[in-house]
Amino acid sequence: MLTDSVEEGSLPNRFRALWDEIAPVGRDEGSGGYLRYALTEPELRLREWFRGQADRRGMPVTEDGNGNLFARWGEPTAGDAVLTGSHFDSVPHGGAYDGPLGIVSAFLAVDELRAAGVAPARPVVVGAFVEEEGARFGVPCLGSRLLAGEITVDRAAGLRDAGGVSFAEALGARPAGARPELLGGFAAFVELHVEQGRAMVDADAPVGVASAIWPHGRWRFEFTGEGNHAGTTRMADRRDPMLTYAFTVLAANKEARLRGAHATVGRVAVEPNATNAIPSKVTGWLDARAAEPQTLTGLVDAVRAKAAERARRDGTEVALTEESATPLVAFDGGLAERLAALLDAPVLPTGAGHDAGVLAAHLPTAMLFVRNPTGVSHAPAESASDADCAAGVTALARVLEELTCR
Amino acid sequence: MLTDSVEEGSLPNRFRALWDEIAPVGRDEGSGGYLRYALTEPELRLREWFRGQADRRGMPVTEDGNGNLFARWGEPTAGDAVLTGSHFDSVPHGGAYDGPLGIVSAFLAVDELRAAGVAPARPVVVGAFVEEEGARFGVPCLGSRLLAGEITVDRAAGLRDAGGVSFAEALGARPAGARPELLGGFAAFVELHVEQGRAMVDADAPVGVASAIWPHGRWRFEFTGEGNHAGTTRMADRRDPMLTYAFTVLAANKEARLRGAHATVGRVAVEPNATNAIPSKVTGWLDARAAEPQTLTGLVDAVRAKAAERARRDGTEVALTEESATPLVAFDGGLAERLAALLDAPVLPTGAGHDAGVLAAHLPTAMLFVRNPTGVSHAPAESASDADCAAGVTALARVLEELTCR
Repeated sequence: MLTDSVEEGSLPNRFRALWDEIAPVGRDEGSGGYLRYALTEPELRLREWFRGQADRRGMPVTEDGNGNLFARWGEPTAGDAVLTGSHFDSVPHGGAYDGPLGIVSAFLAVDELRAAGVAPARPVVVGAFVEEEGARFGVPCLGSRLLAGEITVDRAAGLRDAGGVSFAEALGARPAGARPELLGGFAAFVELHVEQGRAMVDADAPVGVASAIWPHGRWRFEFTGEGNHAGTTRMADRRDPMLTYAFTVLAANKEARLRGAHATVGRVAVEPNATNAIPSKVTGWLDARAAEPQTLTGLVDAVRAKAAERARRDGTEVALTEESATPLVAFDGGLAERLAALLDAPVLPTGAGHDAGVLAAHLPTAMLFVRNPTGVSHAPAESASDADCAAGVTALARVLEELTCR
Repeated sequence: MLTDSVEEGSLPNRFRALWDEIAPVGRDEGSGGYLRYALTEPELRLREWFRGQADRRGMPVTEDGNGNLFARWGEPTAGDAVLTGSHFDSVPHGGAYDGPLGIVSAFLAVDELRAAGVAPARPVVVGAFVEEEGARFGVPCLGSRLLAGEITVDRAAGLRDAGGVSFAEALGARPAGARPELLGGFAAFVELHVEQGRAMVDADAPVGVASAIWPHGRWRFEFTGEGNHAGTTRMADRRDPMLTYAFTVLAANKEARLRGAHATVGRVAVEPNATNAIPSKVTGWLDARAAEPQTLTGLVDAVRAKAAERARRDGTEVALTEESATPLVAFDGGLAERLAALLDAPVLPTGAGHDAGVLAAHLPTAMLFVRNPTGVSHAPAESASDADCAAGVTALARVLEELTCR
């Protein structure tokens, strides 16, 4: 049985000590956010830190030829291992916890099990996946997709960052691609992650278990009107696509609220984008997510209909293109129920994609969430208390004990 | 008395022949619009063309030390001259007529007067002003402002284009600044310009006379919220400034229509402008214009109030900054009425700034507008028929005869 006191101090203090080792890496002093793009200097420093932590614990590290790192506790001949971990890379000016919390917690969970004298019957493997955010090469979960064979080696190798560097160049080699023999050696994957909303604040729980990742997608709305002089063109003579865009933004928000779904227009491009010119074209990107596929379809259809109706009033035209669509990921139901019962934790869905979402199609997979009091994610205000992070470590250690010892 | 037939063909044909000499200069084949920035190669070619037209007519050309060109018909000792003309420079991908029509029409009006045997008692001067659009150095009507002493030489000399070239460097010399002795030699200024709306289409008149330039300005709205994850943040937890922005765009449109004013939001900047991020900040620029200053003030106040009200609902903040404000320019009322009676033409205000608006504070000034069937301006679709342009030349010739012979 695990406890949370050992001689080096309380678990929250030990969490803080380890956390402080990586806290300065890639931090932008201006925003307070992180610039830890995959395979750039800050993320490479974190990978070195990973190797150092594994060494300190006597855990041999392997790399899968795709940029993903694995540190093993226990003999590989002991049976199918349980994989845990997350990623180091961030979105631009992202928060501290999204990704690294899952890796730091994994090493501390190993420490907890060892301190409690637990001897797992199967290995525990701590993983660090590359390019989870897609912030550098444009494809989220690139490392786990390669490992699982869900993206071709040719496509992955040729992805380029904003500076023209390819993923293969950044990796220093052509990626290895699918490694079924490696994946087949895992009995399960458990990813611990900071919560990216406030549902667990409301549930008054420090740790939760994921049920599913909502189906989600991106749709590009192109609104076309007539460029004209802002000073001299009478209101009645205008065909202003900014009006259709603005109406569509508000319609997306309203339709999402009505359905309990999520809709965001966070990106816009305007031509010519001049103060004294009625735009000729406005492009807006809709990010939409919902618990059920039919809710998502209904939401996007409703927004499309509202946009088209307003375009008729504005004398503009609207074209809608689906840029990406990701179906519902339901995590292993039995595993989620088993862990929720073990931890007495709430079970909740999430709207965000994760490496766990990719691997869920290949092996029994679960996610643990740690409470985030701000609810903010992908921004500097993302946070978690040391006490909740310690609760996350304890929960992860119990889960690993459950999955490797029984 | 003038007629519109001389031996070289009909006036519309003569207009077309002269117009075709400059039509290819600076035209972008992709957009069909013009890239004629002040003192760049296409505009320098048009200035050479101006000197050639003046030479062909025996009109000596002077430059005022600020980049403005003047070609004189008649002895300088004959009395105060009547100035006519406009500018060659364009906005990015602008139309063909905005500016050049006033210069081409001025030379043709001189031809008409000469062909009719008119001998003006005072000189006629054809002018070409530099950097009217402000598209290269950022200050509209830069040439006329320098001539009138309405901008300091230091400030004008130091204005830089996007490539870092200063106005003084482009001009090849420090500008001369105010030339009161030169301005004092003009009895009046008449600028002919393509209409930039469709009011004259509705009035069924090829030529109109300007009454005033509407007061106008630019206001920057900064909407601040909380950057967050688009997938995981519940709708109720959001502070999304894009919603406040969108509502404000629609409010500006509605409030302008209610008041018979003009409001446009044609420029927006979003941080971080990512598809999967609720923005932390959205900045929108409002261009607003109205016939009366109090209408403009009321419009901006109403939009500000609507934005603030919506910000409270969205949990966002809004800050409003006036970036520029130009008061009402009323053209010389007696002169406008005299010309309208002479031409039997409608009198109408405009929402756009012009060199005539700058010079109106210094000498009796009038504007003639030529009908624009599309109503479009500052865009490739800007147009005028050859017949209407010929009617403009005839009207300008009659005005010059009226002002120089009586």
